[in-house]
Amino acid sequence: MACIFCEIIAGRAPASRVYEDDDYLAFMDIHPWRPGHLLVIPKQHEQYVGGLPDELAHGLWMLGHRLAAAVRRSDLNCDDLHFVLNDGRHANQSVPHVHLHILPRWKGDFLTLLGQLARRPFMALVKPSPRTELDRRAAQIREAMS
Amino acid sequence: MACIFCEIIAGRAPASRVYEDDDYLAFMDIHPWRPGHLLVIPKQHEQYVGGLPDELAHGLWMLGHRLAAAVRRSDLNCDDLHFVLNDGRHANQSVPHVHLHILPRWKGDFLTLLGQLARRPFMALVKPSPRTELDRRAAQIREAMS
Repeated sequence: MACIFCEIIAGRAPASRVYEDDDYLAFMDIHPWRPGHLLVIPKQHEQYVGGLPDELAHGLWMLGHRLAAAVRRSDLNCDDLHFVLNDGRHANQSVPHVHLHILPRWKGDFLTLLGQLARRPFMALVKPSPRTELDRRAAQIREAMS
Repeated sequence: MACIFCEIIAGRAPASRVYEDDDYLAFMDIHPWRPGHLLVIPKQHEQYVGGLPDELAHGLWMLGHRLAAAVRRSDLNCDDLHFVLNDGRHANQSVPHVHLHILPRWKGDFLTLLGQLARRPFMALVKPSPRTELDRRAAQIREAMS
């Protein structure tokens, strides 16, 4: 089955384009969580960001910065924004082609309210970890770095 | 009031450290959403990632990649992971010092279940946008880029 983002790159599927060059495309998310929600993708098809050559990955984030700065300067008048990259389907990646979300936010918007509603049950499930547990996890990751 | 992350950098507050060099520090989130949840920060105190010199911002993301690869290789045995940078307090930034979250995920974990529970009310609130609206937003952001 064709990748919908590759179809957009090829011009065979519609998109509201914000930016394009030889290596990248940025376009509006068709299902925006908030107005101005956009996606930045490499033209090279990879599911995981770690599959991209370093230079291409670097450029993706730097283009994300440029676009985020433009979003902040634009008439959208957002207050703040998120950078989110869901790396794999068990991390909510819905299209298996690397995409960086830039999601504008406004003070007290409905996502803020949803977050406030979820806060109590969430905090009941997610407890601060004891230091011994945190140290153990840090050691596991340090080991895998070396 | 002192910035807690600057206190950690200075060694005056505890942290389970994963990586440190002249410019960056990585340590475990004290309130992990999932085991292995870590934070990558620049030592330079800035609230917004756009306030960092380009080179320092670039290095932050590249170090994030190295750490994410280590998390994937580690004994944590996670399936996937998120990269999240909340840029400003109206985007859920709880400490006003740039920090990149690396959040491991497991197939069917409780965040997946929470997401499934929230899906219906969320989708009722967040509708796909008509193309005219998406085109208008794209134009707003394109204008601010030039």
